Formats: sequence, structure tokens, C-alpha cells
Amino acid sequence: MVYEIASIPGDGIGPEVVDAARPVFEDVAERHGFELSFTRYDWGTERHLEEGAMMPENGLKELEGYDAILLGAVGHPDVPDHVTLNNLLLPIRKGFDQSICKRPAILFDGVESPLEGYDGGDIDFVVYRENTEGEYADMGGQEHPGHDHEVAVQSAVFTRTGTERIVRAAFDAATEREGHLTSITKSNAQAHSMVFWDQIVEEVSEEYPDVTVERLLVDAASMDFIRRPEEFDVVVASNLFGDILTDIGAIITGSMGLAPSANIDPTRTYPSMFEPVHGSAPDIVGDGVANPLATVFSGSMMVAHLGESEAGEALWNAATDQLADSEAPRTPDLGGSSGTEDVVEDLRSRL
Amino acid sequence: MVYEIASIPGDGIGPEVVDAARPVFEDVAERHGFELSFTRYDWGTERHLEEGAMMPENGLKELEGYDAILLGAVGHPDVPDHVTLNNLLLPIRKGFDQSICKRPAILFDGVESPLEGYDGGDIDFVVYRENTEGEYADMGGQEHPGHDHEVAVQSAVFTRTGTERIVRAAFDAATEREGHLTSITKSNAQAHSMVFWDQIVEEVSEEYPDVTVERLLVDAASMDFIRRPEEFDVVVASNLFGDILTDIGAIITGSMGLAPSANIDPTRTYPSMFEPVHGSAPDIVGDGVANPLATVFSGSMMVAHLGESEAGEALWNAATDQLADSEAPRTPDLGGSSGTEDVVEDLRSRL
Ligand SMILES: CC(C)[C@H](C(=O)O)[C@@H](O)C(=O)O
Ligand SMILES: CC(C)[C@H](C(=O)O)[C@@H](O)C(=O)O
Repeated sequence: MVYEIASIPGDGIGPEVVDAARPVFEDVAERHGFELSFTRYDWGTERHLEEGAMMPENGLKELEGYDAILLGAVGHPDVPDHVTLNNLLLPIRKGFDQSICKRPAILFDGVESPLEGYDGGDIDFVVYRENTEGEYADMGGQEHPGHDHEVAVQSAVFTRTGTERIVRAAFDAATEREGHLTSITKSNAQAHSMVFWDQIVEEVSEEYPDVTVERLLVDAASMDFIRRPEEFDVVVASNLFGDILTDIGAIITGSMGLAPSANIDPTRTYPSMFEPVHGSAPDIVGDGVANPLATVFSGSMMVAHLGESEAGEALWNAATDQLADSEAPRTPDLGGSSGTEDVVEDLRSRL
Repeated sequence: MVYEIASIPGDGIGPEVVDAARPVFEDVAERHGFELSFTRYDWGTERHLEEGAMMPENGLKELEGYDAILLGAVGHPDVPDHVTLNNLLLPIRKGFDQSICKRPAILFDGVESPLEGYDGGDIDFVVYRENTEGEYADMGGQEHPGHDHEVAVQSAVFTRTGTERIVRAAFDAATEREGHLTSITKSNAQAHSMVFWDQIVEEVSEEYPDVTVERLLVDAASMDFIRRPEEFDVVVASNLFGDILTDIGAIITGSMGLAPSANIDPTRTYPSMFEPVHGSAPDIVGDGVANPLATVFSGSMMVAHLGESEAGEALWNAATDQLADSEAPRTPDLGGSSGTEDVVEDLRSRL
């Protein structure tokens, strides 16, 4: 079996982590009797600066035939983020209807949390983030520029289709986990969108009588991720709320350098995309110390999504073994002084 | 000098903390040669359940003549939040053009942070939150209810007037503090509203050459409040982002039971409103253990706003002295076992 993977290393440390992790993925494939065939696309801000576009006009068409996409990072200090993101990362998520963004937040053994009193194993939840609409809808504009009565409007759009599918995916996940779902809202201040969200959660919950549902306001949830993270199981949130909460989830579990994500089209009409949650990290580019583990965990989710669940587990376990081993190399974000390559080499020896 | 204060204890623990704190405020006034004359309004969800409205129809008119408003909490387990909030708290903020919401986040001596390695004095910043528009605009709706193509839209509205005044207030505050301003955006995904916000920050910054400005995405900021809270001085954010960030600010500085807020109309056309950030806390209602200190700190801001800065300082210092004193009574949210009244009594002895 050969799986065709489009690799888009992107900006900043993206190429460092994606290129470093690739041999790990190839190793694990070989050991499990399949092949991952990577095609590398040099799309990103360098291309934008040279050729005026983050990706070619037919970029999405080009990606369509792949089994999955592995993305590094998008973002560059010299170009505004809304230019770079809206021309590479977000068009893929939206264009390929990757409506389900799955982001685990796990405090692994051997990793320190900034929260006092939390040790490895104490935190283990997953956020299901709506990934194609909501507050990220590209809808709105500015009127009367420069005048006193100038106004800007940004409209959040929630469709029944989009909301139902993320909510249903989260209920499915809760069924397979501890049976507890937390739905994030801001219904007290956003009566048009969030009351609709609550209504869909209510409707769908009737199909899942064994799942307990808790509703939590986004502000309270941000607090509770710090105050009682151990109590969460599956969390379902809109695009923006999911964005904020998964960053909190990443930091309370030790490092942005460990947080993986999967952007999934559940219908499998289009390729799904796997990416570390960390960004391009311009401050450490070229130092060779970027943590490749978020990419490795993302790759584990990718391989599992392709149907190779044993290989996915092998990758996951190699990474968690390494983290639990106090003698193993670790990058500076985890308090170590090793480089990207040391971590990768050690990982390969554990497969 | 007599200041007329409208007190709206509201729901849940609101009446417990507002009524308990009132004698503290009266004490401090007497000692500083002025009078605070409180008029108590039984507005809130009980009234809604009995009479069908959170407040009378001419409620705002009734409040208009006061020098300030002291509010407890709004929110009740039996009524959806968007009903209670949109009929009491939010109409006051919007109707009285309380455009500046000021929320300090200070880790006081004697208070424990859930963040490892942070001690009293290590965290001290203030969030300036836009308070009357943005993502809280009551604009949007639902179409095709129940059908597959149903859609809900919630529009965030940013006016030049509203954005300029919160940004300017934040720059003014930075000038009086450490000269560092962090502006919160999500420009990478919300190009219509947040790019406008960035533009206003850029424009206004030219009037304040001595203030350094950092732009930070809301997801990164949520993380950085946990990772490096000591580096913030003044933070300026939209209504929703400010809501989320101030809850994180409250929890990292030890307790929601300590976080105060001021909702200010800078033109002084209308009364400003002062309220603890914590909500109605249905889980502890009637137990007599609600922490009155967030209300006391809010009252301190109120008294200072009225021009009685020495009295404001006296209140603030009595509360921080109490917190620093390990023998002093503290409520359960701070790890103690004292009640609301014990804390108030001890406070009065410190004035
Ligand atoms: C880069 C940005 C557009 C993106 C998002 O907000 O979705 C990132 O923060 C993420 O969480 O993947
Ligand atoms: C109760 C709610 C509407 C309110 C808000 O979101 O503004 C509260 O969370 C706050 O922070 O004051």
C-alpha cells in the first residue's frame, strides 16, 4: 500500500520540523508494511515575496488527489498574517471542507505543566473545533474609511450543516471516551449565533443519551482549563473559541512544541490536513532547536486516519516514551538543550 | 459632599457581597469626610420571574441621576443567560455608554497563583476592554429555522468612535504606568474587524511616541497570560477578547473572588458602574462564604472615580493588608474557612 502525502513545510520553523520528521514517518511505514510517498510543495511566504502568491492559482486542485496533507506552519514577520493565512492555510481548511479540527491536550509523563500540582497523566482531553465557518467567515467590510462615523463589520456565520457535523463528531468522540461533553458558548452575549449553537447541541444530544453534556461559557472555560483541567473529556467549540481554548490546552500541557492537530473532512471527499499547532516561530528559525514532536504526533494522527492505526500507535508511543525518559534529548521549549535532529534520531531508535 | 449611589445587588451571591461591603464603604466615606448614600434596587431574575421583567421599563432613566452604580451579579440557573444579561447588565453598559471597562489583574501578597513559581507582586497588569460594541453587538439573526440550509449570523460591529476611545484610554493608562501597551487582535482570521482595530491602534500610537506597542493574537495572548504574565503592563482588547482575557487574568492572580471591574463613561454624561467580575455563583448562594473583596476593590475604584482618591486608596490598602496577613480571615475560594461577614468585620478594623 502506498499513501500519497503532500507536504507543505511553509514558513519559519515549518520546514525544520516537517523535513526532520519525515524519515520518522518513513521508518514507521516500512516497519508496518506500507509506504508514505511524500511530495514537497515550497508554498508559503517566500514564494509570495518572490512570485506574488502563497501558492499557485490551481493549488487546491493540485492537492486534491493526495491521501493527506502534512503542513508545517504559515506566518512571516514581513507580511501581515491576514495575507499569508488567507492565501494558504485557511483556503485549504475551507476549500477541502475540513470541518472537524481535532486537538488533543494531554499532559504526558515526563512533561512539566506550568500549573502547580499537575503531573504527567493528570490532564487528558480533546477539543473538537469547528474549522470552516463561524467567526472565521470571510464576511464583512468597512464603511466611511477615515471619517468619524467609520464602521467595520465582521459577521460570524453558523450553518446548521457546519454546526451539526462538529457537534456530532464531538458526541461520537465522547461516546468512545469517558462519555462527557462540554459545549462552549457565549450565549449570554451572542444571542444570535450561540443560542443557535446551544439549540443544535440540545437536538443532537437526544441521539446520545449516554453522553452527559455540560454547557460552559468561553470565559469560564478559559478559566476552568487552568482551574480544573482534569475534569474535561471532550470539548466542542466554534472556530474562534476552539482556537483560543486549544492554545490554552497546549500551554497547560507543557509546550506548544507538543500540540498536534488534525483538520478532517469526515466525508473523505478531500484530503485531510495534519499540522502542529505551533506557528512559524520566527524567533528560533534556523537555530535547529524547533521541537519536532508536535509534527510527529500530528503525523501519528495522519497515519491513523489513513487506516494504519498500529503504525499511528507506534509513532505516538515512541514519542511518549521519549518524553517519559529523563535521559532522552529534549528541545529548549521543554527545558532541554538538544536540537531537532537529536530528538529525531533518538525517536527513530525507539520505533 | 454626598454621593448618590444606586446599588443593584442582582442575583445569586450578588446581594451577599454588595450588602456586606456597603458598611465598609460607608465607614471609609465617613473617615474621609464625605457621604455615600446608597439606594437599593431589587432588580434581577427574581423580579423577572415574578413580574416578567429584570428591571422596570424606565430603569435606565431612573438610574441616570446617580453618581455611580454598584452592581453585584446577574445570572440565574432557571433563566437563560441571554435573557437575564440582555435585560439588565448589558443594557446599562450600552445605554450609559460605559465604553471603557477597566480590569486590573494583580497577584497580591499572601495570595497563591495556580501558576507554578509566581508569588505575590509578580503579576500586575490592567486590561482595558471595549465595553459597548464589537462582538457583543446585538446584530444578526437566524434564517430557515429547522431546515437543512438553516443559518445563523452574528455580526460584530466596530465603530471608529468606539475603537478610538478604548484605544486612547489604554494609551493614557500606559503613559501613567510602565509605558507598554499590548493590543489584542485576531487579524489573521478576522480581516474585516481586526485589521480595522490594528489600523486605529497604529493611528493613535502616533500621539503616544513614548508608549511601546506590541500586537498579540488573542490565542497567543491567552497562552502568554499563563506563560509570561509578568511581562504585561496595559492590555487593550475588544469586548469578547477582553471578556476572555480578564477571566484568565482573574484566575492566574488567585481567585475570581478578588477581581474588580469598572465600566466607565469617560465623558461622565452617565453614571459609571462598578462590579465584581465573578458572576452569581449559584453553587454557593446562601452559604455566607462569598468573597466580598472583589466588591470592595470595585468600590475602591468607584470611590476613586468619584474623585475621592484617598478614600479609594484606603479601601484598597485595607483589602491588600488583609490578604497579606496570614492570620486574617479568608473565604474558601482563597483556601480559608471564614465567611463573608468575618472578612468584612476584619476589613473594617483595618480602615
Ligand atoms: C494561524 C491561525 C489562522 C490559526 C487559527 O487561528 O486557526 C492558528 O492559530 C491555529 O490555531 O491553527
Ligand atoms: C455576564 C456576561 C455577559 C459578562 C460579559 O461577558 O461581559 C461577564 O462575563 C463579564 O465579564 O462581565
